Amino acid sequence: MSDVFAARRARLRDRCSAAGNAAALISRPANVRYLAGGAPHGAVLLLGPDEDTLLCPRTHAGGNTDGRVDDQLRLTVLATATGDPAVAAAGALTPSAVESLAVEEHHLTVARHRAIGSVAPRLRLADLGCAVEQQRIVKDEGEIACLRIAAEIADQALGELLESILVGRTERHLALELERRLVDHGADGPAFPTAVATGPNSGRCGHHPSDRRVEEGDFLSVSLGADYRGYRCLIGRTFVIGTSPADWQIELYELVFAAQRAGREALVPSAGYRDVDRATRQPLEAAGHGEGLAPRTGHGVGLEIDEDPQLAPAAMGKLDACVPVTVGPGVHLPGRGGVRIDDTLVVRPEADGGPELLTITTKELLAL
Amino acid sequence: MSDVFAARRARLRDRCSAAGNAAALISRPANVRYLAGGAPHGAVLLLGPDEDTLLCPRTHAGGNTDGRVDDQLRLTVLATATGDPAVAAAGALTPSAVESLAVEEHHLTVARHRAIGSVAPRLRLADLGCAVEQQRIVKDEGEIACLRIAAEIADQALGELLESILVGRTERHLALELERRLVDHGADGPAFPTAVATGPNSGRCGHHPSDRRVEEGDFLSVSLGADYRGYRCLIGRTFVIGTSPADWQIELYELVFAAQRAGREALVPSAGYRDVDRATRQPLEAAGHGEGLAPRTGHGVGLEIDEDPQLAPAAMGKLDACVPVTVGPGVHLPGRGGVRIDDTLVVRPEADGGPELLTITTKELLAL
Repeated sequence: MSDVFAARRARLRDRCSAAGNAAALISRPANVRYLAGGAPHGAVLLLGPDEDTLLCPRTHAGGNTDGRVDDQLRLTVLATATGDPAVAAAGALTPSAVESLAVEEHHLTVARHRAIGSVAPRLRLADLGCAVEQQRIVKDEGEIACLRIAAEIADQALGELLESILVGRTERHLALELERRLVDHGADGPAFPTAVATGPNSGRCGHHPSDRRVEEGDFLSVSLGADYRGYRCLIGRTFVIGTSPADWQIELYELVFAAQRAGREALVPSAGYRDVDRATRQPLEAAGHGEGLAPRTGHGVGLEIDEDPQLAPAAMGKLDACVPVTVGPGVHLPGRGGVRIDDTLVVRPEADGGPELLTITTKELLAL
Repeated sequence: MSDVFAARRARLRDRCSAAGNAAALISRPANVRYLAGGAPHGAVLLLGPDEDTLLCPRTHAGGNTDGRVDDQLRLTVLATATGDPAVAAAGALTPSAVESLAVEEHHLTVARHRAIGSVAPRLRLADLGCAVEQQRIVKDEGEIACLRIAAEIADQALGELLESILVGRTERHLALELERRLVDHGADGPAFPTAVATGPNSGRCGHHPSDRRVEEGDFLSVSLGADYRGYRCLIGRTFVIGTSPADWQIELYELVFAAQRAGREALVPSAGYRDVDRATRQPLEAAGHGEGLAPRTGHGVGLEIDEDPQLAPAAMGKLDACVPVTVGPGVHLPGRGGVRIDDTLVVRPEADGGPELLTITTKELLAL
C-alpha cells in the first residue's frame, strides 16, 4: 500500500521538476492525505529533492499522528505548539541547495505565504496550482474499491430507513437516523451533512433539515453519503409518501428520472464535461424548468465530496475512464416541492460495460 | 436586533478609517456572520464608505440567502455560478474614490488575493489582520444568552445519556446518540464532532470515537457541545463504569478536578491568559504529569468553538469581563486511560459573583 503513495509523490515530483521546482509544499488536507496516506490535523507535506517529510503541529500527549501515514515518509512533529508546519518546512529547506519551492497558492493564505517568505527569503516561491487535484481526478482500483464500499453503506442506510415509519417524523430526525445507520454499517462518518427535505422543501439543492414533519402526500427527498477510509460517495433519491401520488408528482418524477438517465448514459470516456451536463439539463429545459436549475448537474467525488470534474455548461475538459462522478439533476417548484435523483458512477469504457453504477438503490418512484 | 450588527460594523469601520482604509472586505465566515447576522455559504461582506454590501455566490434556484441576514445590508447575488464574491466586491469599488481596501490576509488565499488585485489594480490592498476576531472576544449579553442556551442543551443531552445503559455500547454509538439528543433539545447541530473515549482511550484530547465498547471498570470521557444560533459551547466530563472505581482512578480524578477548579477560580477580569493556564497546569505538573499535557488548558468560544483567547503558557493578554472561555485540563496515562473535565464559563467581575458557569452538569466522580 505504501508504494501507492510513493508512486503518487514520484509523479508529482516529476511534474514539479519539469516546471523547474526542486521542492513542493502540499498544504491542502485532502492533497496531503492523497500523497501521504493520512493527514493529521494541520500537517503539511514537503516533497524534497531527496526525501519527503510530513510536518505535523505539536498537539497533545506525544504528538499523536495518523496511523495510516505512509511509513516511507520522514515524520517531523514541531517542537512548539504555536508553530506553522508550512513555515517550518520552508525553514528546513534554507540550508539546502533548493532554490524554488512550489506552494498551493489556492490553499495557503496570504499571511502564511508571507511567513514562509520571511523564514526563507532566498527561496523563490512558485505556484503549484491544482496539480495534486488534477492528479486525483482519475482513481486507481483501490480508491474505487473504497468508493464502492462507501456507496454500499449509503444504500444500506437508505434501504433501512425506507422500511421504517416516516409520517410524523421531522426532517432533522430522519437525517440523524440516516447518519447513525451510515456509521452502523461501517462508515467513518457521513460524507457530508445529510439532507432530508419534505413537502415544499423537497427537491431543493442543499436544503438544511428542519423541524417540518413528513406528511401524507409529500415528496420526500434525501441526499446522503458515506465516508469510507476517506472516500466519499453520494446518493440522492426522492420518494412519495402515501399510496397515491398526484399526477404532477408522477410527471415531475418521470421528467427528472429521464434527465438523470440521459446524464448517466452520456458518461463515456472522452465525453466533454459540458456535454454530460447538456445531456442531463436538456430534457429539463425542454420541459420549461431551465430557469431554476442548479449551475451544474454533477461533479467528481473522492477524498472530497465535491471535487473536479465539474459537470456544468461552461466546464472545459473531457472524461477519462476511472473517474467517479455524480449525476444528480433536480427540479424544485417553489411552494410545491420537487424531485432530485443523484447517483455516483465510475466512468468505464463501453467495452467494459459502460459506466459502473455504485449507488444501486432503485430509482422507481416508491410510494412509502 | 439589526442595530446590533450595524453597531458592530460601525465600530469596525472606525477602526479601519483610523488605519487609513476607507473600505474593508470581510471573508472569514464567522466574521461575516458576526457583522452581518448571517453568512450564506461563500458570502463576503464589503464595508464601504457609504453602504455595506453582502455579496453572495450564485447558487441554485433563486439565489437562496440566509434569513438571519441584517436587512440594513445591501444584498448582491452574483450573476454567474463561477464568480468569487470577493473579486466582485473589489470590482464594485473600482469606479469609486476608495483608494485602499483592507482584507483578511489570514483568511484569503494567495490566489484570491491576486485575483482581487487584478480586477482592481489601482486599489491598494491592506491587511485588516484579526480586527474582527479581536472585536468578537468580549461578548454582549445577547451572545451570552445564546451560549447559555447552548450549554443547557449540552447539559440535557449529557444528563439523558447518563440515565441509559452504557456497558456494551460503542464509542461511536454513544457519540451519535449524544448528537441526536443535542438536536432533540433544540441545537442547530453539534458544536464540534462529539468525542467519546472509553478505557485506555479515556482522557485523550481530540479522540475520534472508535468501535471500542464500554466495559466494566472503564473510565468514560465525553466531550460535546451544542450550536445554538451559531454560538458554540463545550462540556467535558469523565465517569467511571461500575460500582467501585480503582484507587488510581479516584486519585487521578481528584487531581484533574482540583486543577480544573484552580483554573476556574483564576478566571477574573484582568487575569493574564497565561496565569489562568498556569493555575490549571501547575497542580498537574506538581503531580508529575507535566510531560503529556496539552499545549493549552482552555480557549475562547463563541461563533467558533475555538477562538481567542488561548489559555496557554506563552499567551499574551488579559481577560476581560464577558469573555466566555473553556477550562479543560486532562491527563492521559498511555495504556490505562485518563480524565478530562471541561467547562464553559463567562468571566464576570467578583462584584457580580465571579465567573458564570454555563455547563452545570456535576463534576463529582459518578460511577455509572
